[in-house]
Amino acid sequence: MSTLIRGGTIVTSETSYRADILCDDGVIKAIGEGLETPSGAEVVDAGGQYVMPGGIDPHTHMQLPFMGTVASEDFETGTAAALAGGTTQIIDFVIPDPQEPLMDAYRKWRGWAEKSVADYSFHVAVTWWDDTVHRDMGLLAENEGVNSFKHFMAYKNAIMVSDEMMLASFARCRELGAMATVHAENGEMVYYLQQELLAKGITGPEGHPQSRPPEIEGEAANRAIRTAQLLQTPIYIVHVSCKESLEAITRARLEGQRVFGECLAGHLLIDDSVYYNEDFEFAAAHVMSPPFRPKDHQRELWRGLQSGNLQTTATDHCCFCAPQKAAGRDDFTLIPNGTSGVEDRMAVLWHHGVNSGKLTMNEFVKVTSTNAAQIFNIHPRKGSISVGADADIVVWDPEMTRTISAKTHHQNIDFNIFEGMEVKGSPSHTISQGKVVFKDGQLNVVKGAGRYIKRPTFNPYFDALDKRRKETAPRKVSRPAQAAE
Amino acid sequence: MSTLIRGGTIVTSETSYRADILCDDGVIKAIGEGLETPSGAEVVDAGGQYVMPGGIDPHTHMQLPFMGTVASEDFETGTAAALAGGTTQIIDFVIPDPQEPLMDAYRKWRGWAEKSVADYSFHVAVTWWDDTVHRDMGLLAENEGVNSFKHFMAYKNAIMVSDEMMLASFARCRELGAMATVHAENGEMVYYLQQELLAKGITGPEGHPQSRPPEIEGEAANRAIRTAQLLQTPIYIVHVSCKESLEAITRARLEGQRVFGECLAGHLLIDDSVYYNEDFEFAAAHVMSPPFRPKDHQRELWRGLQSGNLQTTATDHCCFCAPQKAAGRDDFTLIPNGTSGVEDRMAVLWHHGVNSGKLTMNEFVKVTSTNAAQIFNIHPRKGSISVGADADIVVWDPEMTRTISAKTHHQNIDFNIFEGMEVKGSPSHTISQGKVVFKDGQLNVVKGAGRYIKRPTFNPYFDALDKRRKETAPRKVSRPAQAAE
Amino acid sequence: MSTLIRGGTIVTSETSYRADILCDDGVIKAIGEGLETPSGAEVVDAGGQYVMPGGIDPHTHMQLPFMGTVASEDFETGTAAALAGGTTQIIDFVIPDPQEPLMDAYRKWRGWAEKSVADYSFHVAVTWWDDTVHRDMGLLAENEGVNSFKHFMAYKNAIMVSDEMMLASFARCRELGAMATVHAENGEMVYYLQQELLAKGITGPEGHPQSRPPEIEGEAANRAIRTAQLLQTPIYIVHVSCKESLEAITRARLEGQRVFGECLAGHLLIDDSVYYNEDFEFAAAHVMSPPFRPKDHQRELWRGLQSGNLQTTATDHCCFCAPQKAAGRDDFTLIPNGTSGVEDRMAVLWHHGVNSGKLTMNEFVKVTSTNAAQIFNIHPRKGSISVGADADIVVWDPEMTRTISAKTHHQNIDFNIFEGMEVKGSPSHTISQGKVVFKDGQLNVVKGAGRYIKRPTFNPYFDALDKRRKETAPRKVSRPAQAAE
Amino acid sequence: MSTLIRGGTIVTSETSYRADILCDDGVIKAIGEGLETPSGAEVVDAGGQYVMPGGIDPHTHMQLPFMGTVASEDFETGTAAALAGGTTQIIDFVIPDPQEPLMDAYRKWRGWAEKSVADYSFHVAVTWWDDTVHRDMGLLAENEGVNSFKHFMAYKNAIMVSDEMMLASFARCRELGAMATVHAENGEMVYYLQQELLAKGITGPEGHPQSRPPEIEGEAANRAIRTAQLLQTPIYIVHVSCKESLEAITRARLEGQRVFGECLAGHLLIDDSVYYNEDFEFAAAHVMSPPFRPKDHQRELWRGLQSGNLQTTATDHCCFCAPQKAAGRDDFTLIPNGTSGVEDRMAVLWHHGVNSGKLTMNEFVKVTSTNAAQIFNIHPRKGSISVGADADIVVWDPEMTRTISAKTHHQNIDFNIFEGMEVKGSPSHTISQGKVVFKDGQLNVVKGAGRYIKRPTFNPYFDALDKRRKETAPRKVSRPAQAAE
Repeated sequence: MSTLIRGGTIVTSETSYRADILCDDGVIKAIGEGLETPSGAEVVDAGGQYVMPGGIDPHTHMQLPFMGTVASEDFETGTAAALAGGTTQIIDFVIPDPQEPLMDAYRKWRGWAEKSVADYSFHVAVTWWDDTVHRDMGLLAENEGVNSFKHFMAYKNAIMVSDEMMLASFARCRELGAMATVHAENGEMVYYLQQELLAKGITGPEGHPQSRPPEIEGEAANRAIRTAQLLQTPIYIVHVSCKESLEAITRARLEGQRVFGECLAGHLLIDDSVYYNEDFEFAAAHVMSPPFRPKDHQRELWRGLQSGNLQTTATDHCCFCAPQKAAGRDDFTLIPNGTSGVEDRMAVLWHHGVNSGKLTMNEFVKVTSTNAAQIFNIHPRKGSISVGADADIVVWDPEMTRTISAKTHHQNIDFNIFEGMEVKGSPSHTISQGKVVFKDGQLNVVKGAGRYIKRPTFNPYFDALDKRRKETAPRKVSRPAQAAE
Repeated sequence: MSTLIRGGTIVTSETSYRADILCDDGVIKAIGEGLETPSGAEVVDAGGQYVMPGGIDPHTHMQLPFMGTVASEDFETGTAAALAGGTTQIIDFVIPDPQEPLMDAYRKWRGWAEKSVADYSFHVAVTWWDDTVHRDMGLLAENEGVNSFKHFMAYKNAIMVSDEMMLASFARCRELGAMATVHAENGEMVYYLQQELLAKGITGPEGHPQSRPPEIEGEAANRAIRTAQLLQTPIYIVHVSCKESLEAITRARLEGQRVFGECLAGHLLIDDSVYYNEDFEFAAAHVMSPPFRPKDHQRELWRGLQSGNLQTTATDHCCFCAPQKAAGRDDFTLIPNGTSGVEDRMAVLWHHGVNSGKLTMNEFVKVTSTNAAQIFNIHPRKGSISVGADADIVVWDPEMTRTISAKTHHQNIDFNIFEGMEVKGSPSHTISQGKVVFKDGQLNVVKGAGRYIKRPTFNPYFDALDKRRKETAPRKVSRPAQAAE
Repeated sequence: MSTLIRGGTIVTSETSYRADILCDDGVIKAIGEGLETPSGAEVVDAGGQYVMPGGIDPHTHMQLPFMGTVASEDFETGTAAALAGGTTQIIDFVIPDPQEPLMDAYRKWRGWAEKSVADYSFHVAVTWWDDTVHRDMGLLAENEGVNSFKHFMAYKNAIMVSDEMMLASFARCRELGAMATVHAENGEMVYYLQQELLAKGITGPEGHPQSRPPEIEGEAANRAIRTAQLLQTPIYIVHVSCKESLEAITRARLEGQRVFGECLAGHLLIDDSVYYNEDFEFAAAHVMSPPFRPKDHQRELWRGLQSGNLQTTATDHCCFCAPQKAAGRDDFTLIPNGTSGVEDRMAVLWHHGVNSGKLTMNEFVKVTSTNAAQIFNIHPRKGSISVGADADIVVWDPEMTRTISAKTHHQNIDFNIFEGMEVKGSPSHTISQGKVVFKDGQLNVVKGAGRYIKRPTFNPYFDALDKRRKETAPRKVSRPAQAAE
Repeated sequence: MSTLIRGGTIVTSETSYRADILCDDGVIKAIGEGLETPSGAEVVDAGGQYVMPGGIDPHTHMQLPFMGTVASEDFETGTAAALAGGTTQIIDFVIPDPQEPLMDAYRKWRGWAEKSVADYSFHVAVTWWDDTVHRDMGLLAENEGVNSFKHFMAYKNAIMVSDEMMLASFARCRELGAMATVHAENGEMVYYLQQELLAKGITGPEGHPQSRPPEIEGEAANRAIRTAQLLQTPIYIVHVSCKESLEAITRARLEGQRVFGECLAGHLLIDDSVYYNEDFEFAAAHVMSPPFRPKDHQRELWRGLQSGNLQTTATDHCCFCAPQKAAGRDDFTLIPNGTSGVEDRMAVLWHHGVNSGKLTMNEFVKVTSTNAAQIFNIHPRKGSISVGADADIVVWDPEMTRTISAKTHHQNIDFNIFEGMEVKGSPSHTISQGKVVFKDGQLNVVKGAGRYIKRPTFNPYFDALDKRRKETAPRKVSRPAQAAE
């Protein structure tokens, strides 16, 4: 059965134009004005609306086992919530425990994800190092469609990598044509401040931002970027939350380095005053790393998106409910880190970005799907409206006004950081694999319909960097043999 | 008659993939793998080659009357040379004399351009100001497809604009949805230095760069950008030649301002030592404004292209032969400013950009066509490979090696600033309006086949800036009436 | 009669140490521990206090005729208020009307200033240009001890200079060894916005900051700095109020240019919300140019002082009382620009700078006196505690707490922008020319005791720049004569 | 016996003036015009010369045991060479082996230094960590006049500190009022590149710079600066050699952080081409860390000195002769790192800095003595010309021209990196502790005459930072106790 999207304005990362779209067999079959309706096709009336590539959220953690509990949102509910918000693909993370074989962890996560209702991929974290990790990275990249590996520079005594491991793993990434990605916070500094704050009796959630100030993120971002510079390999910094790390990215990009930065919807809009709220549950619900920042950072992040120094938006969707958060009532370091967003990202970006003139509609498409698809090398299959592309599409009603609330959202969490925010502009229909899976506020999804999307290695930056490396290869000087003495 | 491009790899600003292209009626009719050959179609074998949007050179001056002479390259020979180099559209300039009605000048240039063999558009310069200029800008924008106006901040006592005029004209541009563009050099400073140098007996071409040092360009670029910031209108800086003006652009972009920068092929590759050559003809042949710069500026310009802070490449193609240049033998200020490049731009950009790994192929497409098409609002008709787009296409042979020389180039000038440069990568075929107009090194063009391309006003940045202006509109405070005293 | 300052801690721009100071004949005769008291000497007990060079306010306008009225504070009351605040010298401005001979204006101001109770000097403004201005600059520099000339880039149709004049005057300054100084606001832009705002019915004081946004200052600062760069002469930007101009200064300094920046006490502490106050008198009392800025600029200005990119602090003391300000009740462009501060600068700088740890005490001395003395070449006579220096000294009680108020200040104005501010740290004694002129909150001054301080030309930066110019002198290429044809 | 310096121009960091200086008992007794000559005084004729504070070289390694050998220059010859070049004090380094008690190492170095002929102090390196190190830092700071501790971020498997140690040690420094100083190179990265280069067969000295590229220094500088920022304690980066680390310093300083940078004479003037010389001995003689850099870095370092973002100049004087360097003939990682300079620093700085107009004479004094004295808290005893200061003085003949050579220098090394450099401006006399120890090119020194100079803790920045910390102390939120459930 096919779907015809009629009468809308197609908005891509590059242009906007009036045309209809015919979807069949899960892909876009035709784009044109006045397309005929195949018999039996479902017709979506997109009149007065924008038709855009479905969102890609490149940073989620569905049902993550973390800090002694498991994230409340699983792959089924999480991908459904994503669809309700116009996001048609997530890239989640496989995070092996130290010493756990990467392939084992990978298979475990693949199993968990089978119930997904929308397409998904996986980054794989490198949390320890030996020859088997080196080998498994190769298996994942060459056989399993994993083209990105994650490195946590924080979480001392857990999954934090050392500089030595980071060098080895980045070098392996380069060899495999895989993107090195990092969570940039200096774990030693975090640990130092956590101990200091606890020793001073600061045990509440306000200790969280105070133990992770922006300079800690700026330091780590710069260190990771310098590591990538040394190896001449591309790098992607997840959840850039502050001007310190944005500056490190920007500096490197201005020098021609291939650095990419991701920004979370929450960091663009929420500030750190939430942690000083006297209600523990409210404050704890906002605990995530990096934390929300003072307001002046938000302006810089928006500017990063506008200037192209930040390329993607994500959510780090990782849900823990109040009873889970309560584990840290007497010690903020025990509050499970994470909050929701996969459903809300597109709407809050549109409202605060496009409606205010910070972003053009084309830029909105870039930062919600196209750039992620390019960086993670699944473009134009994903993140584009073009013949042959996957029919993952959102029909966007710029006039729809609604209020975000945990009471009405589809996310499996008892809190929403955007609670009460009125947004203008939301999906009227979401199409996944050519089928209308969300319309009139109702989901119509099938458990397991989501597919694992393999991502090819060697995005175009690798070829360019390979040429650079040849131009700057180490030089050897021939010297006459030493005269006998 | 149709044309089928078979077996190549299509490279766009966003992606690369294997597909054939069918051109008919001057436009792209189909893109796909294994397209059938219509009867009578000309088949272009693109095996092992890249198929890209034809180049757009947004800055040329064919047959320009300037400094007492007329540029040797006319619209026919110039557009032909462009096609030989893979460039399928130019945007030239209408430059009224002070007091000359804009519409008169416009019609004059339209007449001159009728013999063009490839498509063309016009920017129109604002060189003076009164109500008729204000009115004519409206006529040009609304009726004639002119969506950009140029402002010379240099050339005192000739076409230089004052700050007052610039404010008025930029405000008018904003109103019309037209891009304000500037030649950024502080004309007062140039004049001051010219007098000083001549007074010191420095009359040769070496006086040219010494009278136009980079700070003069940096100052003017910053002033124009601040003017656009004040008015919240987009701005485009032509021929950014030095880090001083690039820094002004970059600073503004990092703050979210909508500023665009153009870079000339010559400035990327030629340095200012040419002016100190003892051969007057050689030195004078390089006289153009802004002048070529010390080598360290070149690195910064390449970085500007890589980081996206410079969006377009152009040539300022404006040819004067040795006898014309000789007018300034005793006074460098009388040497007609300009040199060639419209034929060479694509090849030197590819060789020094793509082959060295500074740019990916997709970035090459961006900076040679797509970005210009977007900024000047003719995308996706131009600068894209998509169904419905104009069939302006270059088939690029990455293995072809040739040596650039005035002896073999198609440009109507007796000199080539890239003389002797060996480049790897050049067009095997150029297709204009669906027809093969260049292959096997031979042009096959028709005088007058080029069309005037109207450019719609209000590119997407205007809508965004309009929203910004509403958010930051002037505030009025209501105050109680003054008490009687 | 001599004065002995006993038991204090001397704080200079470089160091702090315990010593007594003996003043005689208006100068410092001895510094040492345990100095003996000459008979008849007045002894100042400085126990527990800091003994520092008296403040120098390099930017005041006593009894200035401006905008149809005359500043209410004259040289007598103004220098007395300065002494009450610990400031022992001002540098005021001679501002000729366009076409008024500079020497005439200079003599007029010298006459007005004769009643001063503390030492003073004059900058002279260049507000127009012809050969007599060029000549008079020479007379002033060579005979009258004027080593700095001021240029207003704002105030169109009044005292604004053109770029052409600025080039000519800066070149003359360089020749004379005099510092070029500028009021950096783009007057064309101000005028444009004023007209636009008035046309929109925004006639109240809130129109003032909206007609002079920071980008207008940033533009002008950059233009002036580039002019000085071109000429390789030092430059001093008065009243840097925003990050835009600070950035221009910082950029230039990082490139090795000799640029100096002055910051007003008010701009460090007052924000632009004052202009939106519904009380016209309150709002109008704050009208000065550049206007007070949004809060985030204040942080940057403090950082500028800390990092040494801003060298001096001043006040632009220029008093107009409410009846004078009322002239602009219906049109903000008619409100006389200016407010007070000469008495308050030292205390607010100490309280908000030193007490908060933003500045060390030595840095406080630098930015309140020493740097100004060095830049304007009266160091070590002024701005230092050294044998032979003028005995202009402030004894600072770090424990004294008081509240600033127009009710109690010595300034001849009915308003104080720091009204109600509690400061800790104030002068217990001020010594001028070796005499205690302020103690226990009481002034003891003599009309006319203030002396005109001549300032020698050619501060040390001129010699260095002269060497730079020789290293970078214009190059001439010798070319063979053209062969006959 | 006293010394009278007659007829010179005194040049300090702040000003220049004509005066005589009387030295007695090792200190400056009087400064004034026309001082009388005490009977028996040695009179130094300083006519036409500049009289400045003797140089302080804050970075030397006399007779350092390092890489299996011992530096050839000992404390006697080294301090003598210093005097011959106008440098009257060095600050050398105590470098304990890992696990060696700090006090033991300190006493060892104190013993070695007893034969010094000029004054000296010691920084002490923290190369390992446990409670005894923590304790010994206290003993050194409180009893032994050590107010600075050094941290090597390079030299993996030897003296490199981890981030954890750096945090602990910086925190201890803050507590003690001692300056944290760092050698900023990322040791993991160096090690990685060394292995890679050796594996590629690059074993010669050219491997040295290639294993320590600028980004490695930039990374480490930034990490150290962020660590200091976190702890709000001042930091001093030794031997800043490249723009990458200068940028990190500058960024931090522009944000108000108290960061100081030192620059070596060699890095200002020598570029990395030396390592590619085919003569092993020549190349190896230049091996030091950080290595000499490509030329464009030199311009940035000079600008750093001009703008005040670099405060001190030093040499890292650490001499190894050719037979010692030969240890690394087959493996560049075994070449002992170090070269000379203590004798040459002042002259090359003067010639290339002052004579070219990059620095004023006052700035020369700042960067050769005064700033070091202030930062390491021995000002005004050292680094100043003031009554009571130590009579460590250099009489500088600006007209003396000489050629630097290993054949004629006083340094105990067979090589000079400035070989053949002609400099204009050199010391005619050096006065140490009031005695003329160098004149007419002859040294007249006494073994053991040099004194250990204790340096007090808590320079003025500590007080300011202490106030900052109070203003930004961690906040605790009081929350109601959790309701029973």
